[in-house]
This record gives sequence, C-alpha cells and structure tokens, in this order.
Amino acid sequence: MSNTFGQIFKITTWGESHGTAVGVTIDGCPPGIEITENEIQFELNRRRPGQSEITTQRKESDIAEILSGVFEGKSLGSPIHISVTNEDAKSKDYEPLKNIYRPSHADYTYDAKYGIRNWKGGGRASARETIGRVAAGAIAKKILKMKYDLEIIGYVKSIKDITAKVNTDTVTLNDVEKNIVRCPDNKTATTMINKIKEVRKQGDSLGGTVELVCRNVPVGLGSPVFDKLEADLAKALLSLPACKGFEVGSGFNGTKLMGSEHNDEFYMNNDVVRTKTNNSGGIQGGITNGENIILRAAFKPTGTIIKSQQTVTNDGQEIEFKGRGRHDPCVLPRAVPIVESMVAIVLLDHALRQESQNQFI
Amino acid sequence: MSNTFGQIFKITTWGESHGTAVGVTIDGCPPGIEITENEIQFELNRRRPGQSEITTQRKESDIAEILSGVFEGKSLGSPIHISVTNEDAKSKDYEPLKNIYRPSHADYTYDAKYGIRNWKGGGRASARETIGRVAAGAIAKKILKMKYDLEIIGYVKSIKDITAKVNTDTVTLNDVEKNIVRCPDNKTATTMINKIKEVRKQGDSLGGTVELVCRNVPVGLGSPVFDKLEADLAKALLSLPACKGFEVGSGFNGTKLMGSEHNDEFYMNNDVVRTKTNNSGGIQGGITNGENIILRAAFKPTGTIIKSQQTVTNDGQEIEFKGRGRHDPCVLPRAVPIVESMVAIVLLDHALRQESQNQFI
Amino acid sequence: MSNTFGQIFKITTWGESHGTAVGVTIDGCPPGIEITENEIQFELNRRRPGQSEITTQRKESDIAEILSGVFEGKSLGSPIHISVTNEDAKSKDYEPLKNIYRPSHADYTYDAKYGIRNWKGGGRASARETIGRVAAGAIAKKILKMKYDLEIIGYVKSIKDITAKVNTDTVTLNDVEKNIVRCPDNKTATTMINKIKEVRKQGDSLGGTVELVCRNVPVGLGSPVFDKLEADLAKALLSLPACKGFEVGSGFNGTKLMGSEHNDEFYMNNDVVRTKTNNSGGIQGGITNGENIILRAAFKPTGTIIKSQQTVTNDGQEIEFKGRGRHDPCVLPRAVPIVESMVAIVLLDHALRQESQNQFI
Amino acid sequence: MSNTFGQIFKITTWGESHGTAVGVTIDGCPPGIEITENEIQFELNRRRPGQSEITTQRKESDIAEILSGVFEGKSLGSPIHISVTNEDAKSKDYEPLKNIYRPSHADYTYDAKYGIRNWKGGGRASARETIGRVAAGAIAKKILKMKYDLEIIGYVKSIKDITAKVNTDTVTLNDVEKNIVRCPDNKTATTMINKIKEVRKQGDSLGGTVELVCRNVPVGLGSPVFDKLEADLAKALLSLPACKGFEVGSGFNGTKLMGSEHNDEFYMNNDVVRTKTNNSGGIQGGITNGENIILRAAFKPTGTIIKSQQTVTNDGQEIEFKGRGRHDPCVLPRAVPIVESMVAIVLLDHALRQESQNQFI
Repeated sequence: MSNTFGQIFKITTWGESHGTAVGVTIDGCPPGIEITENEIQFELNRRRPGQSEITTQRKESDIAEILSGVFEGKSLGSPIHISVTNEDAKSKDYEPLKNIYRPSHADYTYDAKYGIRNWKGGGRASARETIGRVAAGAIAKKILKMKYDLEIIGYVKSIKDITAKVNTDTVTLNDVEKNIVRCPDNKTATTMINKIKEVRKQGDSLGGTVELVCRNVPVGLGSPVFDKLEADLAKALLSLPACKGFEVGSGFNGTKLMGSEHNDEFYMNNDVVRTKTNNSGGIQGGITNGENIILRAAFKPTGTIIKSQQTVTNDGQEIEFKGRGRHDPCVLPRAVPIVESMVAIVLLDHALRQESQNQFI
Repeated sequence: MSNTFGQIFKITTWGESHGTAVGVTIDGCPPGIEITENEIQFELNRRRPGQSEITTQRKESDIAEILSGVFEGKSLGSPIHISVTNEDAKSKDYEPLKNIYRPSHADYTYDAKYGIRNWKGGGRASARETIGRVAAGAIAKKILKMKYDLEIIGYVKSIKDITAKVNTDTVTLNDVEKNIVRCPDNKTATTMINKIKEVRKQGDSLGGTVELVCRNVPVGLGSPVFDKLEADLAKALLSLPACKGFEVGSGFNGTKLMGSEHNDEFYMNNDVVRTKTNNSGGIQGGITNGENIILRAAFKPTGTIIKSQQTVTNDGQEIEFKGRGRHDPCVLPRAVPIVESMVAIVLLDHALRQESQNQFI
Repeated sequence: MSNTFGQIFKITTWGESHGTAVGVTIDGCPPGIEITENEIQFELNRRRPGQSEITTQRKESDIAEILSGVFEGKSLGSPIHISVTNEDAKSKDYEPLKNIYRPSHADYTYDAKYGIRNWKGGGRASARETIGRVAAGAIAKKILKMKYDLEIIGYVKSIKDITAKVNTDTVTLNDVEKNIVRCPDNKTATTMINKIKEVRKQGDSLGGTVELVCRNVPVGLGSPVFDKLEADLAKALLSLPACKGFEVGSGFNGTKLMGSEHNDEFYMNNDVVRTKTNNSGGIQGGITNGENIILRAAFKPTGTIIKSQQTVTNDGQEIEFKGRGRHDPCVLPRAVPIVESMVAIVLLDHALRQESQNQFI
Repeated sequence: MSNTFGQIFKITTWGESHGTAVGVTIDGCPPGIEITENEIQFELNRRRPGQSEITTQRKESDIAEILSGVFEGKSLGSPIHISVTNEDAKSKDYEPLKNIYRPSHADYTYDAKYGIRNWKGGGRASARETIGRVAAGAIAKKILKMKYDLEIIGYVKSIKDITAKVNTDTVTLNDVEKNIVRCPDNKTATTMINKIKEVRKQGDSLGGTVELVCRNVPVGLGSPVFDKLEADLAKALLSLPACKGFEVGSGFNGTKLMGSEHNDEFYMNNDVVRTKTNNSGGIQGGITNGENIILRAAFKPTGTIIKSQQTVTNDGQEIEFKGRGRHDPCVLPRAVPIVESMVAIVLLDHALRQESQNQFI
C-alpha cells in the first residue's frame, strides 16, 4: 500500500474504518506555527457522519487528539501526530457481509490483491480514512491563510442533473455553510436537499460534483514537468473514494471551444500581469499565474444502496444481496471539506517546494 | 523542477525544445528484456511532427539512440538512456517572441517562477519534452504485452463537438492508424479531418478528447490509498501539456446516474469474478478488477493561433501579438501515442510494485 | 524534518521524548503475516530503560499497542500503527535546562534550525525516538526469519578499549542475552560491566562499538548504484543518536591490507558459489553474495555526564553546567536491539525490492 | 537498480563503463546559476584515468558536454544533462573475462541478481559511473562556494599504514594538488608515492583513507531523524565503489574516550555559539553546528591485481585466474574529487531543504 502523500508537507494516514483508531502523521510542517486541536476539530466536524439529516446517521464524535509535534501551542518542526478513536463501530452490521463482494465497493479487489481483508467495514477503502486528510488539511489551510491570505472554498456544484450557479469571485465559506448540502446557491440547495431525501427513502443514492476556487494564489506554485500543479491536484482528488473525474479551468467543456475563444489574453493591472479570462483555471504550464484556481471533481453515486443486487461471494457463489445499515445517500456534502483539504495540502506542499527554489539565490 | 515519474519503473526526462537534444533515462526496467531502437522508433514516429497534413509541418526525424542499459539486445537492469537530437530548431522564429508572453502558454509563469526562460521555443513546457515519455512508453507497452498480453489502445474520441462512436471491446491499433486523425470511427474521422483543415486555414485551433481502453488487465494493480491506480493515471495525464481534465469509467456523466444504475453487479464467468457493467472503468478502490480500464483525457485547443491577440511583454508593456511559425492546429492526433505511453508507464510501474507484495509470501 | 525510512517497507516514527506518546507507522508490510504485540514487546524490553543496573534507572514499561493494520492476528497490507505511551516523563528534571545548551547534545542545533525546541527532554533527538524503530524492526526480523531463516545477531564488541572476541559463525541470541552488557564473550563482559559501574560512580560516561552478523543471507539483496546495501546500512546506523562511524567487512582495518591479502577468492561448495575469506563482509558491488554480512557501528560516550562543564545559554551567556537526572553511563547494551532493528528494516526493504525485479520475468 | 541520489538537488547517473557514454541528469539545480563546461571539466580532470604515473594508464579525455538545462550560460531550473563519451573501451581486454567471476569484484553478484551482465568491463559497478557524480559535484561545489563561501577540501589521509599529518583548519586545494597522490603532507606524500610504485611493480594493490574538511559551514543543515546530515553523508560515501567505512568527527577512535573528554564544550565568540573542541565533527543531532565538518572514508585495496588467484566461472568451474589490463594500483588519489563531489551534493541538497523550512515564516 501507499499511504503517504506529499513531498515536503508529507502526510501519512493510517487506520481501518472499524479498527481501534484512525489518524495521520504530518511530516514537514514548518516550525513555529500556532496549532490548536480546535482548529482541526472545526474541519473534522464538517466531514463528520451524522451532522445532518441528509448524511449517514452513524454516530462518531471524531475528536482529534494531537499526540506529538506541537509544544506550548506551536509546531516544533517534528512530526505532528493526530489520532481519532473509532467509536460507533457496529461490526455486527458487517457480519453478514463477511464473504460477500458488495457491488462497486473495494471488497473484491482488496481480497484479490492482498488475500486478506478487514470485512468489518470498508477497512482502508472506507471514507473514514479521510479523517487524517482533513486533520492535516486544516493545518495546511491555516498556514496558507496566514502566509498568503489564500482562501480555499469548495462547494457542491451539482447533484445528479441539478446544477448550482455560483460566483467564484465572491462565494464565501459562510455561503457554503448556510445549508446542509453545502451549495451556496440557496434555491438550488433546497432542490438538492429534497432530492437527497427522496432518494434516501427509495434506498437509492446520488452522485455529483464539487467545485472549488482558490483566491489570492501566489504566482509560481507548481513544479513542471511531472509535478505540474494540476497533475498533483488531479492525483490528490482521484485518490479520494468515489472520485471518478477531475478538471481544471475550462476542463472537458473547454475542448469544445476554438483556440481564439479559449486563450486567456494578458493585460497589466497596476504592474501585475493578469489575464482577461480564466479558462486556464489559474495554472499555465503547471505553474500558478496568480488568477483564481478553479477545479471540479466528480463523485459517483454511493455504492451502498438498500436495493436488491446480484453479486458473488468470496468462494464464487452468485447471490442476491441487499445493502443495509447506515450510509450516505449522497457523499457530496461531506466531500466538500475533504476536497478542500487535499487542495490545501497540495498547495502548501508546492509553496514549501517553491520557496526552496525561489529564495536560494 | 520535478522531472522524474514513477516509483519502480522510473523515468527522468530532460531537454528543452530548442536545445541540443531531448531524452529520457529509465531506471528500474527489469533485466533481460529484448529491446530494440526500432520498437521505440515506431512509437516516436506516431508522435513525430510533420507526419501528416493536419499536424505541424516542423521537420524532425526524431531518431532514438540507446546509449546505455541495453547489452547484446537485452536490458541489463541498469538505466536505459535514450537520446534524440533536435534538428529543426529554427530559433530565429522565436527571436521576436523573446520578450513576449504568449497567451495561454507558459512563458509568463516560467519567467515568474524561475527568473529565466529559454525563449527559443517553449523550453521544458514544449510538448517536445514528451519524446522521452513516448520512448519509455514504448518499452513499458512491450513488457506489458509480453507479460500479460495487455493491450493499450488510445484514439481520438472527440474534436470540438464532433464525437466518435467506438466499441472499446473490439477497437484495434489498426483501426486507429487507418486515418491521420487517429479516430477509429472512419466516417467521423473524415469530418474531424475536414474541420481541422478548415480551422488551420482560419489560423485558429481546436481541442478534443482522447479515450483509451486497456484490455487483458491483470487483477490487483494499484496501491491504495494515495497511489490508487486512477490517481496515478490522473497525475500522469494531467502532467501532459494542454491536458485540462481526466475521467475514468463513467466519469463526469456518471454523476448523473442513480446508484442503482451505476453499480456494477458481479457475476461468475468460468471461475472468474466479472462485472456485468463497467461504470467503474476497470478500477475499484484504486485497484484493477480485471475489466477493461477505460479513461478519457481532455485537451484544450492549441495555444498558438495565427490571429491577433492582446498580451504583455516581460517589462510590463501591453501589446498586440500575432502567432506565426509552424504549429499543430489540433494536438489530438499526436496526443494519442503520448497518452498511451503514460498509461503504459503507470501500469507497468504498478505491475512491478504489485509483484513485490503479491509474491513475497 | 525527515521521519520516514525505507522504500517499500517504509517506517515513519513520531513523538518527542517527553510528549504524550511515541510510535511508528509501518507502510508496506506484506499482507498475511502473523503479528502479535508480544513479539514486538520482546524487542522493546531489550531496549527499555531500567532493564538492568548498568542502564538508566528511568522507569518506562514501554508497552506496545497495535492500533491498525493487523486483523485477526494477521497483517492486512495496510499501515501498521504502533503506539507507546510515555510514562516517566519527569519534565521537572528538565526545567533548569530550559535555556541551556547541553554540550554534545542537539539543544543548540535544534534551536538554531527550528527556532523552537521541546526542552522537556531531548525531543526528537532523544533515543526515545528509537522505540518506533525497534517495534518495526521486530516485525522485519520475524519476516526475514520466516522467509529465509535469516538471523541477525548484534552484540557489544567493545567498550572503551575493552574488546571482546566473538565467533561470528556461531554466536547466538542466547549468548548475547546471557549478561546485562550484551557481550557474548563472558569474561570480557564482566570487565565491561565493572568498568561501566566504576564510570557511573564517577559521573562520567563510556562509548564503544556494536558488531553485528547476519547469517543465511539470500544472494542478491542491494540496489546499485546509490542504494547499495552497505550504503543503506550506513545511513540506517548513522541515523541513530550517538553513532559516529560505520564499517562493513574489513572496514578501516582493511585499508592496511594488500589487495592480494584482501581479495576474497571464490570456490564452489555443492554448486553454490562461496568465498574463502569474507573481507567483503557479505556484500560485493552493493549486493549480497550469500556470505555473512558483518558490520560495526561506533557509538560515542553518552553526552550527559554528572560533571561540571562550560557551556552557553540560548541568550548567549557563558555558564557552568552540571548534568543530573537519570542517564545511561553507556548506551551500548541498549543499542544492540536498535542496531539489529535498523539492519532488519534495511534487509527486508531490499528483499521486497529484490523480489520485484527478480520475479518479473 | 537505484540510480538517483538526493531529494531536491537530485542526480541520476547512467551509463556502463564500456558502453557508448556515461553521464548524469541533475534535477533541482536552482535557476540563474552561471555554469560552464570548463568548471565541470576541471573536476573531471582530477578524477580522469591516466592523469599521473600512479593511476591507471587507460586513456580517456572525459570531455563533459552539457546538453540541456543551461541557456546563455545560466541554469534554467530545468534538468541539466551532462554526457561524456567513452573512448578507450578496449573490450577485447575483457573477452577472456566473459565467464569469470573476478574475486572481490561485482561480477558474481550482478549475474546472480540480474541474470545478465555487461562483461565488457565492470558495467555499472565500475568507478566510471562516478563521472556523473563528479560533474554534478562540480556544480554543487560552486553553488556552495557562491552562497556560503563554503570550502570542501578532501585529501589522502593514509595509504596502508602510512598516515599523513594535516591541519584541517588551514589545508588548501593547492596543498592537495601539489603532488600526484593528493596528500597535503608533502613528506608523507613522497613515501606514499614510492609505496604505490613499488606495489604496482609487484602487481599488487593498496587501500587507504580519504579525509575531508568543510569550512564555513552554515548552522542548521541536516534533517533529523532519518536524514541526519551524517546519515546522508555515510550513504553517499558508502555508495562509492570500494568504500568500506565512514566516520565523522571522533569516529571509531572516539569510542575510546570518556564522555568528559569527548564532549564539546560551548563558548561564545562574538555572539556566535562555538565549541572548544570538535569531536562532533561539526554535526550535532544530525544538524550542522557551524564548526568544520570532518569525516573520513575507508577504501579497500583495488580488486584487480596482476597475481594468480583462485576463482570460479559462471558455469561453476573452479579455475586459476590472473588479472591483466590497466588498473589503478591504488584508487585513493582519484577518489579525492569523488568524495568531495558526494559531500558537496549532500550539503547542497540539505541547504536547499533547509531554506524551505527556515524561510517559510
């Protein structure tokens, strides 16, 4: 397995969904940064199960404990270790699933690859693994804010075919947190929430997209050619459970434009080089150009549904199977802080790399 | 900069577009593999400029020379070094561009980040850098074919709003190479070719998507959680010049399905676990499940157009600028072997990782 | 900081000496291995403070808890997280040291580099950090034993100028554990123990060397050119606190031999290629040749002494300073399991790499 | 294989001793540095075969060509590719060795590991691989000199039991280059040279040690816990052919001192924290303290001797074998620039890492 992400701000997550605990070790956090458990908890609460009527009702308080790396309230430069104890691990719910490969879950592939699997939940394939990412992301976000006043704002852009209208220049965290679906377009949010409730009743599930904007981005983040910023962002997001697609700037729709429509013309604004349009999504040649970074990630509908499906067991029997237990009818609202966290981690990692080149001579 | 890709089958590319040479060093190629310059040349010819009337007319023979790592026709296990001399480097064409930031190119961001830039062409941001990737990809492709009979077939799926119909189960390399646009749907290919010719005359450019299928994929490739196969594929493709999006399986369209429509039910086929549908695109939980891998990459319209545009110089003057020189009106036909190469490199890298875990006990 | 070691069997240690806990996350442990907390505890007990009258009297039970990665007694392939709670953290002992740079400790350099320091003990520079290494080493040792019957036996070879005679072909763990100084030459061990007791009374400290032999080493471990086995072993050991030197095979003394004396002639033994002598220490060209690996590490005398010394404070005052508190008069006996652990981790890491190359075709 | 070294200033060497060429790709060189082929050539000439009557008489001009990464005399931040064509590859000399495992060479282990071997010379195990290291080291040395006025001075400290007296505070490059054995103690140098000539006549070979001092070292280089500076230095030097030992500061001899003798007391010198003695060798807790770095590396006697030896063939026959051809009777004089290069690469890599932490807040 490969449980470490980042080159300088490097996170290692550990823990299975129904094990004793889950957590993260952050190596490479700059020293002298004020860090509190509260700041981390704020973000964990945004991803926590049971936070609203449209998420899973699984109860986990997800309390973050910092076990190392912070001394008298400040980072030491040494590894910051954050641990969250698992509470509501109803392994009994999973007992009947012990030998069953749930459709569109990782049960089969984990068994095939490793020859062993923690069947008491999704193990490492569970989104519970993302707790460590969000804890680390909270710290990354704070440092970026402190150093650059950089803002990272994610939100639900679409659920199924319901699409929000959002102004990327002005949207705020408050706008996003105003409703439980984390869509800053309030009217559309209501439609989304109703849709989720309806689909939950049907025992079915929904997918959608998260859009994210970064503002006040310094020029020069990104490390061509293989660690182009968009490449690392794509990897970061595609490493999330249920993510099936990534695009930056104009993305897939941009392929339908002519070059003359797509090109972002430069102009000068008070001695700063700016672009008139932003089809590039703030990144050119793998390096930020100072415009807003804009990206989108696609999340498939939740695999667990309360409907009868055909599947097979680990000894090759075909059976009929019906999911049960507490699940998210739609992961999108909880995906928002997770996407933000991964983006923050990538940006901070590149900011730390960037400095090393920039300031040497 | 970051010019190395891969964990075990590790490639390092080097060279600027208008420097002396470009190339690649491959570290971690298994020993004892038969490797010829001809096999590499075959793939380089597919990406070569001047190969048809719809690509750039720049003349480069792009001859691959193996300088190390192969002895008496076989790989030694030591680094395979492949070099290609630059021939048609008309730096004079770039002289007027010395101080100009071309819109939607990397001129500005490179200057901002590094404080210096090889203005005789795109330097490292040029697609010329991908020669090394294609050379390495040729070797990766061969090894995957030898070991698993694995096939990697890419093709142009769309140009602007012209979209091909392709059967991923049956499409062959021959189908792809039948026409100069590398679209196996012949009728649509003709439309695409005409469109490209028309747009070239206008001095404008086009974008599109490459779709790719891998067949005969072994079960178990991919390394959760951060090196999920789709994450590494996304990074590989987003690291290509002009790539703005990636999706696997159902991708962005999959977000519009219900869970009950999207889930891939399992069944048994002669003792092999299979899925009835393939919305997962052959990857579940970051690990291949043996179904075809299906993915798509979005390429924006070429930045260079022969039209007047507003831009700025490196000393902050706003000017009008009109591209000239030889450029691709549409990179898609030449992108196909490049996308295939990156996919091959990722798959082989994971195959080599996979073995280390699988066969240890 | 850089708190991760290894390429495939990758360990990340965390925790300061007087923080809440210390531990390790092991990524890349092959799946399906039986692992118990008892096996880990066995090795931790060998490095534990207070284990005998010649070590520090600090009381720490150092109980290992596995929080993830092991399911129903077997490794899952996912990260194995092991945590040890700090118990006897008498930070009060350190209060007077808050502003003092202890001679030949890392107080000054940590402060200079990071601008902040956990002065309640040595922080990350403390040998307490090695708990994570020993826990990981216990697992590595077990896997090597299972797979190859490989034995790793370390012992105290010298303390000050008292040097033991040890037969590397026959020495056993039992021989080593027979006395509290971990020197298998019993008579010399007694001299060493008396010397340590005498020096402790004087408030002074001693250094020495650990020698280590690996038997039943498979041919082919090591990855030239930069990851030669001896290079990775040297790095592993020099990363230990207080280690000032490393040598393999003939080492420094070998520089005094003629080539004709030093060369290890080959011969055949039942179809196996063997060498008559072993000045190479079991490694040639960075790769094991099947002979015993033999190496030595030099440890300087403990920095903490109960004698008056000149030093400075963090605000630039020169002062006189006298150590106090509980310290090891000689780290050698406790260093033995630590050295063994690092060697085990390096060997297993290379064994896992090796397989990936060897078995691919 | 593993042919890349470094985290930020990252070198990848390639090429076999009797292949077409050898070289290096340097990734991560800061942009804007003036770099000339002459500066590189200066160091290559110091390691070149045939440079004096006491080295091998093999004739190689070893001309460095920069193929990328330098533009108008300055580094671009992109990979610097340096290539050296092999000239005097008398493969015929090696024809009789095709099936023979030379004692204390890597022929057997390479064959055992990779199942294939370039028998026309030592392949990757040849010291010819170090050309790339020296080329990269020349650049690293220059940058360190420019930025810190840092000096790296290596020299032959001993050959067999002939040991030089050298003042590490005052020794200069000129002192070292004054004689062909690169020992700044002129009288001892003469003894060494005579000894080498004598031993060459006998067809035998000699080993020895290189000592190295770095002066004007900035405080704060080194990245605990696993990338302690001494750990990375040890790895760098043990990765050199024929190196069997490494020590820093007091090293192995320091193990014979009492703590009260070994500790380096601090004092203030014009507001700078200094130590009275330097048993630490300039590194404490893995981080430089501003004192001179002092280290030593042990090189075994050259494996190739013109004497009859017992050995075996690759099909298991025992035979008598006598080396021939042109070889170094003692590698020490040529090892000096190689050791310096590796030290420079490690220091620059850590300097670049260091900046990223230090200057972030």
